[in-house]
Amino acid sequence: MSDLPDFVLSCPVPLPPGDRVLLGHGSGGVLTHRLITDLLAPLFDDPELARLGDAAVLDLPGGDRLAFTTDAFVVQPSFFPGSNIGTLAVNGTVNDLAMMGAIPLALSAALILEEGLELAVLGTAVASMAEACDAAGVRLVTGDTKVVERGAADGLYITTSGIGLVPAGIDIGPDKARPGDVVIVTGPIGSHGVAVMSRRGGIDFESEVVSDTAPLTALAQAMLATNGVRTLRDATRGGVASVLNELAESSTVGIVADESAFPVLGPVRAACEMLGLDPLYVANEGVAVAIVSAETADAALAAARAVDTGTHATIVGDITEHDDGGPRVHLRSGLGTTRPLIMLAGDQLPRIC
Amino acid sequence: MSDLPDFVLSCPVPLPPGDRVLLGHGSGGVLTHRLITDLLAPLFDDPELARLGDAAVLDLPGGDRLAFTTDAFVVQPSFFPGSNIGTLAVNGTVNDLAMMGAIPLALSAALILEEGLELAVLGTAVASMAEACDAAGVRLVTGDTKVVERGAADGLYITTSGIGLVPAGIDIGPDKARPGDVVIVTGPIGSHGVAVMSRRGGIDFESEVVSDTAPLTALAQAMLATNGVRTLRDATRGGVASVLNELAESSTVGIVADESAFPVLGPVRAACEMLGLDPLYVANEGVAVAIVSAETADAALAAARAVDTGTHATIVGDITEHDDGGPRVHLRSGLGTTRPLIMLAGDQLPRIC
Repeated sequence: MSDLPDFVLSCPVPLPPGDRVLLGHGSGGVLTHRLITDLLAPLFDDPELARLGDAAVLDLPGGDRLAFTTDAFVVQPSFFPGSNIGTLAVNGTVNDLAMMGAIPLALSAALILEEGLELAVLGTAVASMAEACDAAGVRLVTGDTKVVERGAADGLYITTSGIGLVPAGIDIGPDKARPGDVVIVTGPIGSHGVAVMSRRGGIDFESEVVSDTAPLTALAQAMLATNGVRTLRDATRGGVASVLNELAESSTVGIVADESAFPVLGPVRAACEMLGLDPLYVANEGVAVAIVSAETADAALAAARAVDTGTHATIVGDITEHDDGGPRVHLRSGLGTTRPLIMLAGDQLPRIC
Repeated sequence: MSDLPDFVLSCPVPLPPGDRVLLGHGSGGVLTHRLITDLLAPLFDDPELARLGDAAVLDLPGGDRLAFTTDAFVVQPSFFPGSNIGTLAVNGTVNDLAMMGAIPLALSAALILEEGLELAVLGTAVASMAEACDAAGVRLVTGDTKVVERGAADGLYITTSGIGLVPAGIDIGPDKARPGDVVIVTGPIGSHGVAVMSRRGGIDFESEVVSDTAPLTALAQAMLATNGVRTLRDATRGGVASVLNELAESSTVGIVADESAFPVLGPVRAACEMLGLDPLYVANEGVAVAIVSAETADAALAAARAVDTGTHATIVGDITEHDDGGPRVHLRSGLGTTRPLIMLAGDQLPRIC
């Protein structure tokens, strides 16, 4: 971009000269958070955007509450054990709607294709989108296709946006957790990130780890029916650790979780040890963090476990008062000691979704 | 993609082995049309998708009619005379809604950033998005940011999706043109494509051509108020020629237009002659083709001309019966001869939006 005339640069937010985008800005961790809260969101003066939820919720004149969300998918490689970018793009957007309590209504898909991509690869990925739409009970109703030269993309990128209807009576949000509430993780963590990494590195684990990508609408609705859910968030980029930090920050509370309580499948645990990854920071594509009231926690857990995608749901911790300025999220070890669980600073796994 | 295991390839549409994506698949012409109608759309069984409108229109339970659209913007360079990718991304999606008769309600933005992009460039483009949202009277309410390695994108790509409300009583569509109807072009053609090309080639025209990017909601609503509009479509990729062919095809009619009637600004005409481009195929970002009933044509023209973005609106031709199998769109020259105006076969200007 060095040939850009100076006159076109008129960024209203003062920036150190020469500051550039880093891979970590896409990690879902601290850098992503700062890029959005310090540079991008302030350029718009919109309360719904500033809330930084998984989806915006808008009241329509006819009385419907509409959830609206978007996600770009750049996962590399595009095909990985258990799934591919097409399925991921559908489920990821369906889940952003589901986490607002919405029933998905329709999706759009915008494809950016690299010149030279095999049409059979494109057709396979898009066929997977169609299957995932069927499985999630949502229509894909509009789209766009752009092509860039060889070397100006990496195979294919898919941006899906989605709209969904939020049923009456649902009142959840990242700022609604209260001390005494209970934290539930709805499934075994780390599978998606490890599946992608295994294919990327050509690593051959003894038992293959497959992505957990799945639509979470049924799980979310089952838990919401217990009437004690404060907030739901799917633990994608940055993993469960980032979600816990974001929710604690939004609700100005603390969280104490039991390190040993988090469900992790054996092969994922083994792969993480081999690769030096902490599963708490590894991306999931079919796992949510739910914060629920203490009195409904057992009912919410039972409701989650009754749904296919929630059979491994587990209570992992509690919401606490937080009145000092330090880290908000802590892990309790088996020895009874606690240590802070901070947000990811760099980029553990770039292009994981 | 050659390292892709064979087992993952399961494209349900039979394809010649080794067929690959060409730049022309992104042209907005014949190849784009074929990619969508032969490969992508058949993978979904959705009537709204199959209609291939600028936006899908959905009936919501509360009684609202919602238009929903998406567009990926990959224009190269990202900054060009008169505008940049941020403004384009907002206006392009606003216009897809406007062409359905919708009033834009909210937009989403998904950014794909190349590692190393200057943050000031990003900030400037996103600030332009905010300005364009203000000008178009629409909110940006949700977004996503992904980062890919150097060489896996080209600066920044922006996918905007939008939702809008279609007022009661609006009944337009690409299949509604009837013999005897009149074709209006709402502004001088070719400015956007020439502006981008001039910056790309480092070409210095005597008088600078600037992009015509602009929101067309007011123009569309003014024309719709005359109650004779059959269909509206903004003439982006593939230019006016492609739009005329698409509309003639959808409505199973013919179109005869006067070559000399199309408004073209002097500097655009000069640049097209120099570059060997036909302005009828050059992309516009603030020009629509409207097909209106003969009895309301004068009123529609006057309504368009009363709006800033429509001061150069002109009647360019008529809808005719079309009963042979040949080309549907013809141009009448100054000498009274006619020749077919076919859809763009290759890719005149890649990455123009």
